[in-house]
Amino acid sequence: MTDFGLACPIPLSDYPTVTLAHGGGGRLMNHLIERMFMAAFRNPHLDRRHDGAVFETGGGRLAITTDSYVVRPLFFPGGDIGSLAVHGTVNDLAMCGARPLHLTVALILEEGLPMDTLWRVTQSLAEAARACEVSIVAGDTKVVDRGKGDGLYLNTSGIGILEHALDIRPASVRPGDVVLVSGDLGRHGMAVMAVRAGLEFESEIESDSAPLSRVVQALLRRNLEIHCLRDLTRGGLASALNEIAATARVGVTLDEAEVPVREDVRGACEVLGLDPLYVANEGRFVVFLPEREAEVALEILRAHEVCREARRVGFVHEDPQPPVTLLTTMGVHRVVDMLSGEQLPRIC
Amino acid sequence: MTDFGLACPIPLSDYPTVTLAHGGGGRLMNHLIERMFMAAFRNPHLDRRHDGAVFETGGGRLAITTDSYVVRPLFFPGGDIGSLAVHGTVNDLAMCGARPLHLTVALILEEGLPMDTLWRVTQSLAEAARACEVSIVAGDTKVVDRGKGDGLYLNTSGIGILEHALDIRPASVRPGDVVLVSGDLGRHGMAVMAVRAGLEFESEIESDSAPLSRVVQALLRRNLEIHCLRDLTRGGLASALNEIAATARVGVTLDEAEVPVREDVRGACEVLGLDPLYVANEGRFVVFLPEREAEVALEILRAHEVCREARRVGFVHEDPQPPVTLLTTMGVHRVVDMLSGEQLPRIC
Repeated sequence: MTDFGLACPIPLSDYPTVTLAHGGGGRLMNHLIERMFMAAFRNPHLDRRHDGAVFETGGGRLAITTDSYVVRPLFFPGGDIGSLAVHGTVNDLAMCGARPLHLTVALILEEGLPMDTLWRVTQSLAEAARACEVSIVAGDTKVVDRGKGDGLYLNTSGIGILEHALDIRPASVRPGDVVLVSGDLGRHGMAVMAVRAGLEFESEIESDSAPLSRVVQALLRRNLEIHCLRDLTRGGLASALNEIAATARVGVTLDEAEVPVREDVRGACEVLGLDPLYVANEGRFVVFLPEREAEVALEILRAHEVCREARRVGFVHEDPQPPVTLLTTMGVHRVVDMLSGEQLPRIC
Repeated sequence: MTDFGLACPIPLSDYPTVTLAHGGGGRLMNHLIERMFMAAFRNPHLDRRHDGAVFETGGGRLAITTDSYVVRPLFFPGGDIGSLAVHGTVNDLAMCGARPLHLTVALILEEGLPMDTLWRVTQSLAEAARACEVSIVAGDTKVVDRGKGDGLYLNTSGIGILEHALDIRPASVRPGDVVLVSGDLGRHGMAVMAVRAGLEFESEIESDSAPLSRVVQALLRRNLEIHCLRDLTRGGLASALNEIAATARVGVTLDEAEVPVREDVRGACEVLGLDPLYVANEGRFVVFLPEREAEVALEILRAHEVCREARRVGFVHEDPQPPVTLLTTMGVHRVVDMLSGEQLPRIC
């Protein structure tokens, strides 16, 4: 029996078992990652707390990343688990400043999954990979017994190449940087939740799931001094900014009036009692770079359909406590915490 | 709704849904891979039908591979899902002729998993990675609702570097090659099955799960003309040889008297009605290389504890029909087919 004799670093009296919130992108997931995984796997790559790892090989720098997908339902307005997985992994590579090259796909299928569902997901994976100009170069298939899965789970890992000399990562963020967001928030989360809750809104909300590698390449080609890139997935903008601010030991102030949220998404959030700052996106990212480069960066972003609504939404300052504040439209400062608890299980 | 308009390439009248055998490493999994995934993802990397993909970057050749692990139970004699995953991915890289560098780990946890179980698996992952001299550089955690998983599923993907000029892959195998097997067969499969079936044998059978990267590096350092390497996982020796023979369009003849199977494993197989040629291993591999290099290769293999029982078990000839035959101890030739159906579900 495997026994390493070390006490579990998560207090078992508080959390004797894994809860849904441990996968929600908020505080509990953060605890699990920091206290358990970072402690056990400790190495300089993980210490960077990035969307993927960047490493040197003979000729240059490469980035590697991995994500599993357990979204429910498999098909939702604006996407499905196949395209979502390709976009997610391509985007993680882009956030490392890499040009995506190759993906791997590993499937965990539940016995009884309709074969035609698998075929639709396979085609979606293939089509999304083609659109992102990456190849699916290796794969794996496992089948688990009926009742031990939920149709289909998917892992995509990816590798990309860095073709610049920037050190893009949370620790590079510094006071004086501005925060740009590439588009309106909350659509992916609300699209999935609306289907799941059987809600009907006046207009159907479609997921924002989209690849971001092309626009990131455009930013990089202009030699902007990009300090950090981060896509806004589980936990939304609020959790991403909190993680980055904590790693960089800086503070971020957001201007509520500038944070773009579509009216229908805001309405759906109100119905469900959710804050759009915490809702997952799958085609949105933030850029940290010096104030003097903000206008050029926004121009490049807006030239790409997927970033047409790009905005400057905040700035970085020296005071790291609290890490993230929101200047509300009422003119008061409100602390923006990490997501606590689980608001949207299995959103990706 | 995603609809690409192409008919499913698996006949839905035969297989309307996914079955356990579609993940078993035999004929049905092969159909799924060849007809569905190869058709949808088609590219030269997949066409090599190898354990991972080898690709060029600026300075050299790298290999990438992925595997998900769904083994049940999570802990078994001789290993657990954590060390198994590290060994499996390290071995797939080694089979590409690569020196493993970095791994990623992605977890799918079921709500309610004991936190201490997660901690034990995490430590096992860390310890196995240390022993294999690889870093776990990126990760992902998802949690699914109770009843939609089975405690813990795991994906490891890996990257390695090729430090030689050989073209190690199934298509490089040619008539005149010999087949070496690195040790006794069937222990991993029987160790897991014995626990699952609650069988008690006189001696406990331990899994052969082990990393093979060091011994493969030793073979490569001697500049042997290695044509192909393949670790013997799902589907066992029989399925691996069938896949390689089909890709290389050659025939393989095995000498039953030389195929090493321990007495206790053979006995357990008989009790369960299984053929050791089809039982999964997680620390065994085959080497294809020219006859003249067989003795040197065996000497190197046997100098490593994990390959002490290495043997020459067969040879490659021109006639590809049937792809694999066994010269039995009775002196007759028997066709060795791919595994059909599912004999050992969720063995890895």
